[in-house]
Amino acid sequence: MKIEAEWMRGGTSKCWVFETEHLDQTRTSLDELLPRLFGSPDYRQIDGVGGATSTTSKAMILRRPADAEVDVEFTFAQVGIEEAAVDWGSNCGNCSAVVGLYAIEKGWVVPRGDVTRIVTRNTNTGQIIIQRVATPAGALPIVPDAQMPGVAFPGYRVGLGFQDPAGKTTGKLLPTGSATDTITAGGTRWTVSMVDAGAPVVIVRAEQLGLDPSRYGSWASGVELQLETLEQIRRQAAVRMGLASTVAAAARAIPKLAIVASPAQPDPDSDVSVMMLSMGKPHPALAITGSIALTLAARTPGTVLSSITGDAPRSRLRLRTPAGVLETWSEEDDASLLIGVERTARTIATTIIHVPEALGSAVETSLASATQ
Amino acid sequence: MKIEAEWMRGGTSKCWVFETEHLDQTRTSLDELLPRLFGSPDYRQIDGVGGATSTTSKAMILRRPADAEVDVEFTFAQVGIEEAAVDWGSNCGNCSAVVGLYAIEKGWVVPRGDVTRIVTRNTNTGQIIIQRVATPAGALPIVPDAQMPGVAFPGYRVGLGFQDPAGKTTGKLLPTGSATDTITAGGTRWTVSMVDAGAPVVIVRAEQLGLDPSRYGSWASGVELQLETLEQIRRQAAVRMGLASTVAAAARAIPKLAIVASPAQPDPDSDVSVMMLSMGKPHPALAITGSIALTLAARTPGTVLSSITGDAPRSRLRLRTPAGVLETWSEEDDASLLIGVERTARTIATTIIHVPEALGSAVETSLASATQ
Repeated sequence: MKIEAEWMRGGTSKCWVFETEHLDQTRTSLDELLPRLFGSPDYRQIDGVGGATSTTSKAMILRRPADAEVDVEFTFAQVGIEEAAVDWGSNCGNCSAVVGLYAIEKGWVVPRGDVTRIVTRNTNTGQIIIQRVATPAGALPIVPDAQMPGVAFPGYRVGLGFQDPAGKTTGKLLPTGSATDTITAGGTRWTVSMVDAGAPVVIVRAEQLGLDPSRYGSWASGVELQLETLEQIRRQAAVRMGLASTVAAAARAIPKLAIVASPAQPDPDSDVSVMMLSMGKPHPALAITGSIALTLAARTPGTVLSSITGDAPRSRLRLRTPAGVLETWSEEDDASLLIGVERTARTIATTIIHVPEALGSAVETSLASATQ
Repeated sequence: MKIEAEWMRGGTSKCWVFETEHLDQTRTSLDELLPRLFGSPDYRQIDGVGGATSTTSKAMILRRPADAEVDVEFTFAQVGIEEAAVDWGSNCGNCSAVVGLYAIEKGWVVPRGDVTRIVTRNTNTGQIIIQRVATPAGALPIVPDAQMPGVAFPGYRVGLGFQDPAGKTTGKLLPTGSATDTITAGGTRWTVSMVDAGAPVVIVRAEQLGLDPSRYGSWASGVELQLETLEQIRRQAAVRMGLASTVAAAARAIPKLAIVASPAQPDPDSDVSVMMLSMGKPHPALAITGSIALTLAARTPGTVLSSITGDAPRSRLRLRTPAGVLETWSEEDDASLLIGVERTARTIATTIIHVPEALGSAVETSLASATQ
């Protein structure tokens, strides 16, 4: 059994890109097939295509929908490493950046003008992402030359615009109906904002945690001392946002929690300092989905974030993260709002993956199709 | 520019396998080309095919020599991760295991009988390695099913026989002319054996270091306390073996140092306990080249190892390592001695790697060849 795949870098992730029809031909459950392709379970993934880290054990599954309004529909799979399991619960912003480029390289979309627009839909979240791939004079550059922070080599420039991202999980941008709410935890009353856009996020001001906005480098150690209180805030927010029925039932992954403050003076490069908590720990950067939530929060009067960035919507928001500054953009047209980020993407290799074992009915199936 | 490559697992390593003529077409120095293909310099190798660990940042370059006595000639390249550099100084035993399988899969060698013999030569060391690939009834099995320690999934069975491995670096199995020598270091006189086979190795008895042979699990911590003395022994051995003119000039990588003892009683699974030092630290397992040196040392009367294993040459030697027992075999025929190990290998993916940038004259070259 052999399966075609493109191995692509999307932003700061490596992603294995499949087409639905190629996977369907294996007549094997993806929850069984993908871990085997990746070499899981094995902490080194030494017998498969996985890279043995969360950012290199990712798959994207693409198809061209009958729906004429969407060029490409895609599903993201986080493939387990030490477990032969697949998590279908979220999208990956970085891997999303390969979809438009794939469509152009495969001829699904003909590049037109200096920027080619590809409409994509993520099936994990229902999110429409408008992709804009730089195609000067109507073609991909012969030598890709766009740079982005966190990647040593150039790629093709891709803009990802999340269309009307509010409320994709709970139905509302402000699930509680208020721009700010009060949560009591650790004996303190916390002023927070709870927003649902890209991902559900609860936002807390750094000052309330006793963190010095002018000493961003010291936040991580200060946060580490208050993880228990922060987790209480996060779990109460889960209930208030309708994501869990009790604090005990709150999921580990959502909502995310973001700590924000005015940038240290002078910081001409950022509009707000951010530290995200992910799975109970300070995140080394900022997930793209989280950056979408913060951008909408900044645009929404009365949130703890808009009190930092100002109520007037800005077209660019620069978020300082432990890994550097991430910039998002906002665009409104007649019908919709786009919140986006710029990434780069590149095809690393065009591949045919060998799958040797009898996987379910896999061997039988491949023999059957060989005789057709 | 695009380059064909097979991505193969050899033993416990992942290896990128190229053909010389495909690389030659790029007209780019391999010291420049390979790091770029692998995504180096970058500790994550996120824009290339490298796996960001030493066992997954390896390349093999194969060719069919005019020389009728050798089926395949190959060169091993350890590709730097944080440095854009290639180390050509040694062979990799694990990656060696892909060569015979590659030759069969590409039709360079026609399988014959239940075991197909492929004669290979490693150009880094001049070592001939006779490979025996299991081909029951004259063909590779449809479903590979051979298992080996340290790999979660099955592969094709490959035996690697190192032909007459003695003296490949210094010209002699015993570079000093003696089976044992005395080295003074840390105020103590150490009885050591210095052998050159597969790789140059200096062998020390565990008891002389105060390590308890019956408590193998405690060796690592005991060794950590004596690293400075062990490094003095190793550097003096470098000079005695003719590998360096002064102790200060001794290389970090060779000779290797092996600590040996009789197996803990009762240990029906091993003949000798071994801990190797690699780059100044206890090695988590044992390099295949090191196991070849120890096997020849065990066969050589008067060495510190033969005093443990007995002077009568044995056809199987079982070496206990921190990662489990590694078994080597020895065979003598009319003309030569083969020392070998069993591995498994498998092709993970057949690929075409995309190399986008203008690398030296690469772009010019690909345009030139496109018009031919």
